[in-house]
Amino acid sequence: MRFHRRNFLASLLILALGFTFGRPALAQSDPLPSWNEGATKTAIVDFVTAVTDESSASFVAPSERIATFDNDGTLWPSHPMYTQLAFALDRIKTLAPQHPEWKNKQPFKAVLDGDMKALAAAGEKGLVELIMASHAGMSTAAFEAIVTDWFKTARHPRFKKPYTELAYQPMLELLEYLRANGFKTYIVSGGGIEFMRPMTEAVYGVPPEQVIGSSIETRYEMQDGKPVLMRLPKVHFIDDKAGKPVGINEFIGRRPVAAFGNSDGDRQMLEWTDAGDGARLMMLVLHDDADREYAYGPANGLPDTRFGTFSQATMDEAGKKGWVVISMKDDWKRIFAFDQ
Amino acid sequence: MRFHRRNFLASLLILALGFTFGRPALAQSDPLPSWNEGATKTAIVDFVTAVTDESSASFVAPSERIATFDNDGTLWPSHPMYTQLAFALDRIKTLAPQHPEWKNKQPFKAVLDGDMKALAAAGEKGLVELIMASHAGMSTAAFEAIVTDWFKTARHPRFKKPYTELAYQPMLELLEYLRANGFKTYIVSGGGIEFMRPMTEAVYGVPPEQVIGSSIETRYEMQDGKPVLMRLPKVHFIDDKAGKPVGINEFIGRRPVAAFGNSDGDRQMLEWTDAGDGARLMMLVLHDDADREYAYGPANGLPDTRFGTFSQATMDEAGKKGWVVISMKDDWKRIFAFDQ
Repeated sequence: MRFHRRNFLASLLILALGFTFGRPALAQSDPLPSWNEGATKTAIVDFVTAVTDESSASFVAPSERIATFDNDGTLWPSHPMYTQLAFALDRIKTLAPQHPEWKNKQPFKAVLDGDMKALAAAGEKGLVELIMASHAGMSTAAFEAIVTDWFKTARHPRFKKPYTELAYQPMLELLEYLRANGFKTYIVSGGGIEFMRPMTEAVYGVPPEQVIGSSIETRYEMQDGKPVLMRLPKVHFIDDKAGKPVGINEFIGRRPVAAFGNSDGDRQMLEWTDAGDGARLMMLVLHDDADREYAYGPANGLPDTRFGTFSQATMDEAGKKGWVVISMKDDWKRIFAFDQ
Repeated sequence: MRFHRRNFLASLLILALGFTFGRPALAQSDPLPSWNEGATKTAIVDFVTAVTDESSASFVAPSERIATFDNDGTLWPSHPMYTQLAFALDRIKTLAPQHPEWKNKQPFKAVLDGDMKALAAAGEKGLVELIMASHAGMSTAAFEAIVTDWFKTARHPRFKKPYTELAYQPMLELLEYLRANGFKTYIVSGGGIEFMRPMTEAVYGVPPEQVIGSSIETRYEMQDGKPVLMRLPKVHFIDDKAGKPVGINEFIGRRPVAAFGNSDGDRQMLEWTDAGDGARLMMLVLHDDADREYAYGPANGLPDTRFGTFSQATMDEAGKKGWVVISMKDDWKRIFAFDQ
């Protein structure tokens, strides 16, 4: 009894020390160490401080603290091509021996020959053909295994690292900072929902039920007395541009109070977030750092490239509405965890 | 300083009292007081005890503790008709003055005349027409306001109570018991996702982002410079029967470890849940209590009715697979919070 009480008092003492010394220490440490000091970082900290302060007019109840993040170009690179496209091309090469007809059939021939010009010429229709050939025709469980295996071996062509190590370090800190302040963080991506889910929890700390993305149809079937979901070669939902608010409304049923993107595909998500009442934070990552990552727009006179277009019209809308543009070059101390 | 310390010590004392007296008291109280003692209640408690015991082979990590609940007939009544159908009929009557042509056009005429026989004769096609006329053509925000208003005034024809007071008390306790043990509770219903969301948090403690249901398409539009989502008269997804595992996979991306239903529409959800590895709990509510609620099957020779069919085939599958059938009559001490 006495022993228990002593143990108990010791626990209380530890708790007390934690409260008196631990708390101020935490408050003083920088939750965003990979962000340079400046207006961008201040905008984030001011927003989070305001919405979590019960005495502030900007206070937001914890249940309403929803933050949505685009993935490609916002949380990890989308150059030299979308990661999922790199997966699709690899998958076509892997499957080629079972499809001798692909040698003479576009867009497959272009992939097998490494002919990026012919691939580009195949356009969106060709891309859909590649996606369906590489993403459909198996169960959801089989697809998950294929994706998981691919992430283990695939390497980014420039950084020579697994794609899962290319999450932007400042964005990882931002995700964690928001979660530490009661936010539920969601990914809302044009990418495939079942392509992302095998890695989002480990890479971003975002569980599968907080991932929204594009999808193909699935069908419930019995195979040898066991139920499976078969992936069908038919588009179900495109979670891009005007599809993002649609997806957010369907999956979450609440309007985000903060939204983060990097391209024209994120405009409607930011507009939808912005149109709610009360404090809001809308941010766009501008890729203006060719040395450490990539530089593309065409906003601000940056190169106009194939993936992740950030148009001048989006830049103008951001300026008009007070959305914060993150300069990778100026606002980020480092890009990747392995930098420096 | 001294004053602060005294306050602080007083707080610790309150905390200590809470720990030493509060906790054992909670552990000993019955989390399911509206359930009669017996095999059904034991099955629930044994399952929860096993999956939350780290030393048990059946232990399930908190992140994987997903429980899915059908709504109509599982959490609240689906007789004399689905609540959402009652809403649709009321809505048609409200809108009728703006649609003089409905007086002579089926299935609208049947609704306005209260002719349930003609309404039944209109079949599924007629039903879809009624749903589209009452559920589409407005923004998601306008629809939410319409539904919220309706719930305030509508009364169940037999129980003379708001529908939101007709949640089954034993199921409310079960939802809360699961959540207290680290489960995320989801609603997976054939009903409309945007019909349910305005009330699920208040009635069931289930937030909108944990509600999965049927949906019509929505379109992102600018109206007077403000973005809105317009509800279109086109089915997007039917979250019933084989659609339930599809919806669960799309929205959650994890397989549930526990699933609760009451009708043939829930079979595939229970099969999908059952087919996972490790401990599982599948339960079906059998409406065998005409005195306190309703009695229908046609399983076990109960009446065969229009809403919430529980067929003998489903009963046989439950028996074969060890799914637990909840007898409302025998297993539930009371049905509604206002009973007794």
